[in-house]
Amino acid sequence: MTDTVQTDADAPALPTPDDVLAAAERIAGQAHRTPVLTSRTLDALVGATVLVKCEAYQRGGAFKFRGAYNALSRLTAAERERGVVAFSSGNHAQAVALAGAILGVPVLVVMPEDAPASKTAATRGYGAEVVLYDRAGESREEIAGRLQAERGMTLVPPYDHADVVAGQGTAALELFREMGPLDALLVPCGGGGLLSGSALAAQHASPGCRVIGVEPERADDATRSFRTGTLHTRQPGPDTIADGLRTPSLGRITFPLVRELVAEMHTVTEDAIVEAMRFLWTRMKVVAEPSGAVPLAALMADPAALRGARVGIIVSGGNVDLAAACALLAR
Amino acid sequence: MTDTVQTDADAPALPTPDDVLAAAERIAGQAHRTPVLTSRTLDALVGATVLVKCEAYQRGGAFKFRGAYNALSRLTAAERERGVVAFSSGNHAQAVALAGAILGVPVLVVMPEDAPASKTAATRGYGAEVVLYDRAGESREEIAGRLQAERGMTLVPPYDHADVVAGQGTAALELFREMGPLDALLVPCGGGGLLSGSALAAQHASPGCRVIGVEPERADDATRSFRTGTLHTRQPGPDTIADGLRTPSLGRITFPLVRELVAEMHTVTEDAIVEAMRFLWTRMKVVAEPSGAVPLAALMADPAALRGARVGIIVSGGNVDLAAACALLAR
Repeated sequence: MTDTVQTDADAPALPTPDDVLAAAERIAGQAHRTPVLTSRTLDALVGATVLVKCEAYQRGGAFKFRGAYNALSRLTAAERERGVVAFSSGNHAQAVALAGAILGVPVLVVMPEDAPASKTAATRGYGAEVVLYDRAGESREEIAGRLQAERGMTLVPPYDHADVVAGQGTAALELFREMGPLDALLVPCGGGGLLSGSALAAQHASPGCRVIGVEPERADDATRSFRTGTLHTRQPGPDTIADGLRTPSLGRITFPLVRELVAEMHTVTEDAIVEAMRFLWTRMKVVAEPSGAVPLAALMADPAALRGARVGIIVSGGNVDLAAACALLAR
Repeated sequence: MTDTVQTDADAPALPTPDDVLAAAERIAGQAHRTPVLTSRTLDALVGATVLVKCEAYQRGGAFKFRGAYNALSRLTAAERERGVVAFSSGNHAQAVALAGAILGVPVLVVMPEDAPASKTAATRGYGAEVVLYDRAGESREEIAGRLQAERGMTLVPPYDHADVVAGQGTAALELFREMGPLDALLVPCGGGGLLSGSALAAQHASPGCRVIGVEPERADDATRSFRTGTLHTRQPGPDTIADGLRTPSLGRITFPLVRELVAEMHTVTEDAIVEAMRFLWTRMKVVAEPSGAVPLAALMADPAALRGARVGIIVSGGNVDLAAACALLAR
């Protein structure tokens, strides 16, 4: 892939399949082994054997706990004492807060002032300190940087970090270990942490598996980056309902991993995401958040491509505002 | 218990724990082994270790498939050829239809004319013939009796049948086999099939376990029957939202089993059912129907009684009308 990825003298070391195996040992007993659900109705609908790995049942309600716990458990004693900082209004913040509570690491989360009260409350509920900032007047990077400098805290980024990527890969690793090799695995792609980690897991446990990343059409930066070999950022326009996938772009670690290890990238419409959510809720009884329904949306929109195959999909999380989700679904 | 149950010369033979074990072998490979979920948030909330057996993930979306498949698989070749009849507008009808489709047994379901179109469609979707009747002008028992006589079909009742009870008991049996003995098991009670079967399973696999039946206050006939030793029927009044538990009374098989094997009966309010549903949906990511949330409602309403215990609860099903459920929950 040297023709497409820019030379980067300070390029960070990329995680390997061995790092995913090590992460799996580290999180054992702390992360849930999430269930794999099947549906004959779904299999008949798409003409494939579909194995649904449900990270909605992970601690904190999303796969993010895997990466956060793996990253925090690799800190030195001195780093643990000084604590960590994360900036996020979503699942990553809660995952870092939860991992910090378990490991006795102080956690500070930087959130916008207009974040839903339920999210700040949930993050504080896990014992984290929440610092609010004015989205219009301040940059969260500056704030986090200042807090790092003042308190000596370690930043835990949401995806562009080798230990985070390795931790996220443990979900796919569990799926392969439980169900054996697969023909294809569909994974949601925001910043690419879960997708990169899944691809590393497949390299080890199911080398023939086509790992396929899926994005909303409205946040298709990774698909464009993948196809062109140049890092694209998300274009202005209406936000996707898949709020977990609104990340601006792949990162310095996830972009080369996605380019090298992922077989295909696909995009899905907002309507397809809602229909996949509806199927997961009403037929499979899984409360999936919009981001978590994105891989199923791709499979349902184009089942011909994987006819007869053994296909895994990762439902990445289930953290929804119930009123907002009902407004989407109950119509 | 001879002082409380009336002498009944034609008393049907009651199923035994061995019948549950035999049912478990019969349904193996056909019924799903449903997941057992845990939540540290729930454990902290109620001060107990709670194991949630999720029959929402059973085929057909409810535990009913277990009993239906067990009953149909015990028919003779001649009986299978003539087919079976069930009258139900709920989960039992779909379960019998699905079991019939698998076993090649024709299924006729008698449903009221005003049943939701989604339910008649789902039942037909499983390959059953649906006969509609006018709730005001006809009795469904008469209709079913006539169809039985004309076509020689076998009636599969929803709960008062030894093979149905034995089949329903396999859910609790799986829970005990996977998680070991429990201090208490909370089970929803409508006609008492799931509750009786669960108590039989406990007798074999966890003899010290207190099996506790839970009903809505608005359908407390089994609680009154249990406490008085006389069979009570449901009193007129507003319907409970737990539509699966609106059965008129326990039956000739389930009443003596409940009296003999169940430790306690509890009732819960409508508000408590909604709050338990909300917890299951938003915190545990399980789409539970109101009837399925009833045991958790009892545990959340009175956690002191089971403080420190290892407690199983059976979430009996997840078949909801999404718009109706959202109207309950998203407020």
